[in-house]
Amino acid sequence: MVCMETKKLAVGILGATGMVGQRLASLLENHPWFELTWLAASGRSAGKPYREACTWQLREPMPTGVRDLQVHECRPENSPPQLLFASLDSKVAGEVEPAFARAGHAVVSNSSNYRMEPDVPLVIPEVNPDHVVLVRSQRRERGWSGLIVTNPNCTTVGLAMSLAPLARAFGLEKVLMTSLQAVSGAGYPGVPTLDILGNVIPHIAGEEEKVEREAKKLLGAFSDGRVQPAGFSVSAHCNRVLVEDGHLETVSVALGAQASQEDLLAAWRNFRPAPEVARLPSAPRHPLIVRDESDRPQPKFDVNAERGMAAVIGRVRPCPVLHYKYVVLSHNTIRGAAGAALLNAELLKAEGYLD
Amino acid sequence: MVCMETKKLAVGILGATGMVGQRLASLLENHPWFELTWLAASGRSAGKPYREACTWQLREPMPTGVRDLQVHECRPENSPPQLLFASLDSKVAGEVEPAFARAGHAVVSNSSNYRMEPDVPLVIPEVNPDHVVLVRSQRRERGWSGLIVTNPNCTTVGLAMSLAPLARAFGLEKVLMTSLQAVSGAGYPGVPTLDILGNVIPHIAGEEEKVEREAKKLLGAFSDGRVQPAGFSVSAHCNRVLVEDGHLETVSVALGAQASQEDLLAAWRNFRPAPEVARLPSAPRHPLIVRDESDRPQPKFDVNAERGMAAVIGRVRPCPVLHYKYVVLSHNTIRGAAGAALLNAELLKAEGYLD
Amino acid sequence: MVCMETKKLAVGILGATGMVGQRLASLLENHPWFELTWLAASGRSAGKPYREACTWQLREPMPTGVRDLQVHECRPENSPPQLLFASLDSKVAGEVEPAFARAGHAVVSNSSNYRMEPDVPLVIPEVNPDHVVLVRSQRRERGWSGLIVTNPNCTTVGLAMSLAPLARAFGLEKVLMTSLQAVSGAGYPGVPTLDILGNVIPHIAGEEEKVEREAKKLLGAFSDGRVQPAGFSVSAHCNRVLVEDGHLETVSVALGAQASQEDLLAAWRNFRPAPEVARLPSAPRHPLIVRDESDRPQPKFDVNAERGMAAVIGRVRPCPVLHYKYVVLSHNTIRGAAGAALLNAELLKAEGYLD
Amino acid sequence: MVCMETKKLAVGILGATGMVGQRLASLLENHPWFELTWLAASGRSAGKPYREACTWQLREPMPTGVRDLQVHECRPENSPPQLLFASLDSKVAGEVEPAFARAGHAVVSNSSNYRMEPDVPLVIPEVNPDHVVLVRSQRRERGWSGLIVTNPNCTTVGLAMSLAPLARAFGLEKVLMTSLQAVSGAGYPGVPTLDILGNVIPHIAGEEEKVEREAKKLLGAFSDGRVQPAGFSVSAHCNRVLVEDGHLETVSVALGAQASQEDLLAAWRNFRPAPEVARLPSAPRHPLIVRDESDRPQPKFDVNAERGMAAVIGRVRPCPVLHYKYVVLSHNTIRGAAGAALLNAELLKAEGYLD
Repeated sequence: MVCMETKKLAVGILGATGMVGQRLASLLENHPWFELTWLAASGRSAGKPYREACTWQLREPMPTGVRDLQVHECRPENSPPQLLFASLDSKVAGEVEPAFARAGHAVVSNSSNYRMEPDVPLVIPEVNPDHVVLVRSQRRERGWSGLIVTNPNCTTVGLAMSLAPLARAFGLEKVLMTSLQAVSGAGYPGVPTLDILGNVIPHIAGEEEKVEREAKKLLGAFSDGRVQPAGFSVSAHCNRVLVEDGHLETVSVALGAQASQEDLLAAWRNFRPAPEVARLPSAPRHPLIVRDESDRPQPKFDVNAERGMAAVIGRVRPCPVLHYKYVVLSHNTIRGAAGAALLNAELLKAEGYLD
Repeated sequence: MVCMETKKLAVGILGATGMVGQRLASLLENHPWFELTWLAASGRSAGKPYREACTWQLREPMPTGVRDLQVHECRPENSPPQLLFASLDSKVAGEVEPAFARAGHAVVSNSSNYRMEPDVPLVIPEVNPDHVVLVRSQRRERGWSGLIVTNPNCTTVGLAMSLAPLARAFGLEKVLMTSLQAVSGAGYPGVPTLDILGNVIPHIAGEEEKVEREAKKLLGAFSDGRVQPAGFSVSAHCNRVLVEDGHLETVSVALGAQASQEDLLAAWRNFRPAPEVARLPSAPRHPLIVRDESDRPQPKFDVNAERGMAAVIGRVRPCPVLHYKYVVLSHNTIRGAAGAALLNAELLKAEGYLD
Repeated sequence: MVCMETKKLAVGILGATGMVGQRLASLLENHPWFELTWLAASGRSAGKPYREACTWQLREPMPTGVRDLQVHECRPENSPPQLLFASLDSKVAGEVEPAFARAGHAVVSNSSNYRMEPDVPLVIPEVNPDHVVLVRSQRRERGWSGLIVTNPNCTTVGLAMSLAPLARAFGLEKVLMTSLQAVSGAGYPGVPTLDILGNVIPHIAGEEEKVEREAKKLLGAFSDGRVQPAGFSVSAHCNRVLVEDGHLETVSVALGAQASQEDLLAAWRNFRPAPEVARLPSAPRHPLIVRDESDRPQPKFDVNAERGMAAVIGRVRPCPVLHYKYVVLSHNTIRGAAGAALLNAELLKAEGYLD
Repeated sequence: MVCMETKKLAVGILGATGMVGQRLASLLENHPWFELTWLAASGRSAGKPYREACTWQLREPMPTGVRDLQVHECRPENSPPQLLFASLDSKVAGEVEPAFARAGHAVVSNSSNYRMEPDVPLVIPEVNPDHVVLVRSQRRERGWSGLIVTNPNCTTVGLAMSLAPLARAFGLEKVLMTSLQAVSGAGYPGVPTLDILGNVIPHIAGEEEKVEREAKKLLGAFSDGRVQPAGFSVSAHCNRVLVEDGHLETVSVALGAQASQEDLLAAWRNFRPAPEVARLPSAPRHPLIVRDESDRPQPKFDVNAERGMAAVIGRVRPCPVLHYKYVVLSHNTIRGAAGAALLNAELLKAEGYLD
């Protein structure tokens, strides 16, 4: 059994000094399978120990094990381990990630560049673990010994997790979503205080398009060696609000079949990931939590449910325009980024893609 | 002409110490038609001068003219003037407002209690000034020498103003709205800091129902002596965010007829209120402002457009689920409450209902 | 040895539904010595289970063990256990606390009412554990079988902890302090959002007087059966800022003897509480933490140091007016209230006052 | 008389796109003496119209007159007018400002680089207008046809204005100040939201040293052709808080002579600037405002007093360590920067230095 291995697998981070890189470093502390041994970032940080290269932003202290790790430049020549988490700015991810995949590395990416490529898996392990198999054609067609696997945009994750059981149980026709997104989603330094204090910004560049595209790929069916995007329509309104962590989303859905409110609640409450996913060390015991209070979920109270790996649903009720409406919340830098990548890496490992 | 009158009409406020009462006091300073001479509030405030009865919350100073006005109890015996603005808690408005209407007073109300009564006008002067005529049957049926006229809920106003030109030009079938509402909407003391600092509350008691109901009455047709609610469906998701003033709303609409994005923009930009409304002293020159920037409107920059009396629209674009989507912002305690009531009172005056 | 006891001591909370009461409930979960079995609050809450009586404000969930505990009225007839934590509004504490002490209960109080009474210990266990002995004269003079012991105001605690090693090592002559205090210090609902969003309030009623008085009693010497207040002068400026938890204080001090900056740092770093205090279950391993960075402590990163029980010091440097200046931070509802009371109760237990 | 001039004096801004540059552009709209005709900024902005070069941050809209002004590089060759406001980053101000002064321009600077030079006036017109005469020796010694005049750091202004009447009336011995500073003081993008949301940062690089130095030069005496710094000691603790505009400061002072609290209040309330200063168009009618309420000044209510040009004082009371303590607030980008520079320029003009 996997967890019996006595030696941990060395892993690295491309883009280690950013917000998501910091979360990865934090989540990898004491990980049962992986050991963080290698860090890379932009040229500005290269050559420095991590503690100096990085403006640490998390409330929990920097893990002692990484404080003195040297930060490298993002180049395959710098002796990286086989498995690499990539949380790079999309301006550089487009070149850096394939360079590592070509050089034989498994790149578990949080960037948007390759998510929509037909041969690149876009995966939430609880939702579409079968899509990982796309890696085979990816390797074959691109002639790579490595691979790229991606997780969705931070705003898509919670939405897709809440939609998956509905799509399975009732079919899905229309999805209308408005997000209230946390500032940590913009990285660091990210959102200037003067832009958001006592304010709301009703626009996040590229975000709505990502949500509308990625949700359909995630809930699409894998067959004949490729993913057929799901047929429902999605519309997203994305907003930035003065919250540190946690994207809250209001959602209205039209279903493909008649369903009572109790049916919806049951679909969510009975949702279980595949057993091989439930067994992964970072998998939440309850990936979907449904709350009954009239005013939950709230970032303040619910963002860290299941160590930030759950999507928390509430306020389920009929929608006068579509069929039902509800609210869903997920932690944007854990469930929506670092934790999502980590779970993907665990899936790759468990499924033998790293052997 | 009305504005030539040399003597101003005395007016009073029921609920003068609350958030909306303060806005009314502020807006009535130097008003060309009205002079604030009488204040009433709860028993706790009665007998005190206004400056002591009220925890002033506005950034602009308390008008000097009201500082020393005595606060009365909300009873018709206390010699109020004919025209009264009512911004009472709905727990007491239900009894207090008709008591004054019965005693011959014109009550211009911001409370929700009577908005949906068939014989009570629910009016936004730029949208449905013809509904005011309901007052006639109201007086007749209820045997009142006074009257009650109401303005909509603060969240409904901006939405209805943005929908009105679309409904007229193209017909309206479906409206899906998510609000990001300011804390001043909850009055004072209102939202505790511990509830909202770094947080979002996805629930405001009764708000969604009000929006869904009131929008249809506002855009309904007056005929045969009554208002027939408009036939479109409305779904509202209401949220509280850490903003002082200004309700921002994301809106998706399905129209009754084909229309290009340019058609929508033209409908909004060419929107003009009826001439008798445009002439009212508190009427904004541009009740609808459409912005072209990718990230506007924002509360910080747009809430005070047209002295807080405009609805500011932006981000107009196709909606993959309904037809179009956009963002609208309006000032919740001015356009959505005190300014709305003031404009209603001006309409009553101009139309001769106060003679 | 105390910790070998197999049976935990039953404890109760007077004022269980407030902010500090909630912290107490949270800190008492899984406490090695105490078991929370009894709750009391105002008449409004009495008769309800705790989960209904209380608007839970902490980010960590309500401990399951207290959810169903019945809330009583604050009366000795309601079968409270011997040891009671009191976090009552000072309007009622003045009567309630002595009623329980008279009835034989040990009241460990967070309220200000009795702190300055000559026969009531005002104690920070790391600073002045010897003052507890005042309880003996208290009992004798008042004829109580129970007792009252108090902890200082939340703003005084961090200041006094930082001053104690300086007073011992160099003597202390003058202390000038400005606080930037968190909103949780005002309880719930506490500070209205409209008062503090984008604002600072340079006044907290009664706070400056408390700090100026209590610091001198805490650092006073116990002799001849009474506490002689310390002779230094203290001046406090207290401000409310938009922080959830954590009072940050800038401090300038004049010492009684020459000391280098290194001497100060050494005095803080070498500070150790008495061994019997260090052994208490809630005692922090490092009650004083000195940070070297130029911009620490900060509430965001440091408030939970030592589970909220440390005072974190930083920015130590010469003061052009007095001798040295520095910044100190402590968690206002843990170190400054609930945790302070808990540590006092543990001290009482360890010293045999509860036998 | 100056104000009878029919033609306005053309002026320019060096550093026009920053926070203070924007305030200057805003304050210069409809100025009775000056007309803004020329803008310069960094190479990145040069060549663009102002509306494109600048991320406008003020709540009031960009003045229409500057929207289409071309932004130049900061070089004397680019035909700037005689009078230039300089709000440059101190990294470049050190070279740019003297280059313009040498080329014959009057540079009214908001940067710190030359403030402490013995031959450069550091001026608050209400406090030390006589220091302007330093310009004569500056020109003589440096061989400049132009000149540099500076205003103090934004944190020093309010403090110095509040101290000036005390120094004159009673003498001043010791000043201890803690600031709670607004984020706009750090410019744009300035403070990242993640650094300050729910937090306080107890450090602003270089700020304390500036306050401690500049206050003494401002209140120093001019004699024998030079400014003798005042003899009192100053100690500053500087903190950043989540406020948009307005630096609030708690101050404790030791005076040189006995004075009652009424004496202090009278000194402030009777304070009048020199008549030639009071006549300047941007001079506030009441440069010092003393409030009696227990909890004022507050940024929310008082920052815009006298269009942001007043220092608002409150909470005057005895200090147990020094003699008196109080709170003072001033608008950091108006009174503390753009308005301060504007008033200095008006003084130069009125005194004939621009002829």
